Amino acid sequence: MPSAIAVDLPSGSYQIQIAPGNLDALGSQAANLGLGKKCLVVSNPLIFKHYGERVLNSLSQSGFQVQSCLLPAGERYKTANSIQKIYDVALENRLERSSTLVALGGGVIGDMTGFAAATWLRGINFIQVPTSLLAMVDASIGGKTGINHPQGKNLIGAFYQPHLVLIDPQVLKTLPAREFRAGMAEVIKYGVIWDLDLFNQLEACPRIEQLRYVSEELLAEILQRSCQAKADVVSQDEKEAGLRAILNYGHTIGHAVESLTGYRVVNHGEAVGIGMVAAGAIALALDLWDKESLERQNVLIKKTALPTKLPKGIEIEAIVDSLQTDKKVKDGKVRFILPTAIGKVEITDKVPAEVIREVLGEMRSH
Amino acid sequence: MPSAIAVDLPSGSYQIQIAPGNLDALGSQAANLGLGKKCLVVSNPLIFKHYGERVLNSLSQSGFQVQSCLLPAGERYKTANSIQKIYDVALENRLERSSTLVALGGGVIGDMTGFAAATWLRGINFIQVPTSLLAMVDASIGGKTGINHPQGKNLIGAFYQPHLVLIDPQVLKTLPAREFRAGMAEVIKYGVIWDLDLFNQLEACPRIEQLRYVSEELLAEILQRSCQAKADVVSQDEKEAGLRAILNYGHTIGHAVESLTGYRVVNHGEAVGIGMVAAGAIALALDLWDKESLERQNVLIKKTALPTKLPKGIEIEAIVDSLQTDKKVKDGKVRFILPTAIGKVEITDKVPAEVIREVLGEMRSH
Ligand SMILES: NC(=O)c1ccc[n+]([C@@H]2O[C@H](COP(=O)([O-])OP(=O)(O)OC[C@H]3O[C@@H](n4cnc5c(N)ncnc54)[C@H](O)[C@@H]3O)[C@@H](O)[C@H]2O)c1
Ligand SMILES: NC(=O)c1ccc[n+]([C@@H]2O[C@H](COP(=O)([O-])OP(=O)(O)OC[C@H]3O[C@@H](n4cnc5c(N)ncnc54)[C@H](O)[C@@H]3O)[C@@H](O)[C@H]2O)c1
Ligand SMILES: [Zn+2]
Ligand SMILES: [Zn+2]
Repeated sequence: MPSAIAVDLPSGSYQIQIAPGNLDALGSQAANLGLGKKCLVVSNPLIFKHYGERVLNSLSQSGFQVQSCLLPAGERYKTANSIQKIYDVALENRLERSSTLVALGGGVIGDMTGFAAATWLRGINFIQVPTSLLAMVDASIGGKTGINHPQGKNLIGAFYQPHLVLIDPQVLKTLPAREFRAGMAEVIKYGVIWDLDLFNQLEACPRIEQLRYVSEELLAEILQRSCQAKADVVSQDEKEAGLRAILNYGHTIGHAVESLTGYRVVNHGEAVGIGMVAAGAIALALDLWDKESLERQNVLIKKTALPTKLPKGIEIEAIVDSLQTDKKVKDGKVRFILPTAIGKVEITDKVPAEVIREVLGEMRSH
Repeated sequence: MPSAIAVDLPSGSYQIQIAPGNLDALGSQAANLGLGKKCLVVSNPLIFKHYGERVLNSLSQSGFQVQSCLLPAGERYKTANSIQKIYDVALENRLERSSTLVALGGGVIGDMTGFAAATWLRGINFIQVPTSLLAMVDASIGGKTGINHPQGKNLIGAFYQPHLVLIDPQVLKTLPAREFRAGMAEVIKYGVIWDLDLFNQLEACPRIEQLRYVSEELLAEILQRSCQAKADVVSQDEKEAGLRAILNYGHTIGHAVESLTGYRVVNHGEAVGIGMVAAGAIALALDLWDKESLERQNVLIKKTALPTKLPKGIEIEAIVDSLQTDKKVKDGKVRFILPTAIGKVEITDKVPAEVIREVLGEMRSH
């Protein structure tokens, strides 16, 4: 079941390698790319405890000089300060332009390591070894890197592609269940926006809210199809001039919910779940798709044990206001990604504020 | 004498527009590019005092919503802190992806503004309005952006191309003479590495150490040929995989001299002057070019009133050590750009340390 997916971009191509046991192949895969001798592995203590040694060994057995840099775990450390720490270690170890940063972790580590790689010496090599489901199917692919500004998520960043994305599904065994569900939210997203087959396979599986209910074969399909969807979209539109925006399905309202609750009440995947329920309902209100499709989507979200209601205490007007500060705003107009069928979406900036208010009103928690 | 030079890159093309009075044309030129409504002009108080109003007026007359952000003048403010200030103003004014940062200033403002544009919302539009000679012929072209790390110059940055470089030679009238000479060092560099004709024209002019001795025609030639040289080189090798390194002629030892004197004793152009004298002598020692060519180069450097000796108190071993931390080091080998004739250079990492020591020994101040 090993598979390789190519991401083909004007600025260069790279592979997403998926195979159980891949962690031990990192060194040889990296060696094939002809990188310089020095590698710096960036991770957090939780993840490094499980997988750090294997990764360091694999790299040094293939002849790399390896160092590591551990940053505290958590979205609240996705800051300029953490980037400074990576710079300091890079300087200490005299990394050169041909040297490589390896991100071993979830999306937080991946985004920060990518941004550091993009900006140290104006760009050094970069390899993604995603360890969360969300990072495997989404964050590690496509070259969006960045950090948070005290006043907004991901406001600072760069487009910068990795040289390799190496996925070892076995590391998901230690991923907390809530994080697994967060990744599944993005998987469901690919089903709704791009891949009806993937959607059908998820629908056919009785339970998908925890890794242990998912067969190895289905997991392989989930990773393969999700990565392929992301690679397809990104290959057609690296810099989000058009098509790539469809990956933000569920994220418009999702981001508002995350930020208004201080990134503490719901995690990213849960916010996306809520956002997909909202976008699906807006699409129904605008007659873009039918009630049955919306219902199928929402049943899948519930089966994944993701929330479908707004967190308590959140004001609907606050959400509507917050949409205005979104990166996806263009000349003041909020852009929505709305499904027209399962497997298909369109982009529009013509959603009346009244429809948003009505849909959100229906989603209040009791 | 207005001229336009195209910089053609895989990632997109842009123009260098050169014409007296161009400052007032900024608004209409920017409008032609189809950018979003919001512009943020970044400058320093010294430069803004002279040209800020004209630039703001030109932009707002063409329908842009314009704000400004002034940063303290000087290389020592080319820091992460200054970038934070730009981010804060960008956030305050709710800049969007389609908004534009305009750099009005020398290389310091240009490098910082470019880096902020590269990293705010993962990249917004960017226009260079260089006001120093060095920024016109060098820093504003080619997409190198960045800031200093407390332990090294330009260690943090990104490749990010502007949408337009707009040059108005008339602004050079207020440029301090020492800054003019610094720019002339880079102009001489283009003569030595790329453009024998430019070299000959400089040689033919009796005095070139101050703007007032340079005719309007020669100034036009200097700008046109220098920008063309930089555009040619960068178009062939945007990311410095090979050819682009020739632009670092004089910079290997130049950077070491700058950094060892704490960036206070010599400015960048002066350091490059010293570096060209050193590189020229190394090339002679290795029999790459002849004594006469070296002499012609050095006479031109002296005529520009640039230093040709090492600053007092600088240790030769310190320079040799410092070469190791240069960004241009690859697997520990120092790379030199050495002339083979006036108008031609080659790249080599095979300069014996003994030759470097001997050449630098000859360049001690008495
Ligand atoms: N760049 C992109 O395109 C993109 C796309 C989506 C999300 N993101 C970003 O990704 C981040 C979210 O990523 P995430 O959900 O992976 O969060 P995360 O990186 O914080 O990881 C979630 C938690 O799981 C732990 N963890 C990860 N892998 C583990 C493993 N194998 N075993 C045990 N514990 C493990 C982490 O330590 C962390 O505590 C956000 O910052 C988001 O902005 C980026
Ligand atoms: N990005 C690149 O490719 C590149 C290339 C070369 C140099 N650089 C960078 O550029 C910087 C040096 O640039 P610089 O020499 O322009 O220095 P600078 O930006 O500090 O400008 C020099 C001085 O001249 C003043 N000044 C500029 N224009 C003026 C005008 N028209 N009238 C009056 N005063 C004026 C400035 O305020 C400053 O005090 C360095 O930081 C260097 O690293 C970048
Ligand atoms: Zn997401
Ligand atoms: Zn220079």
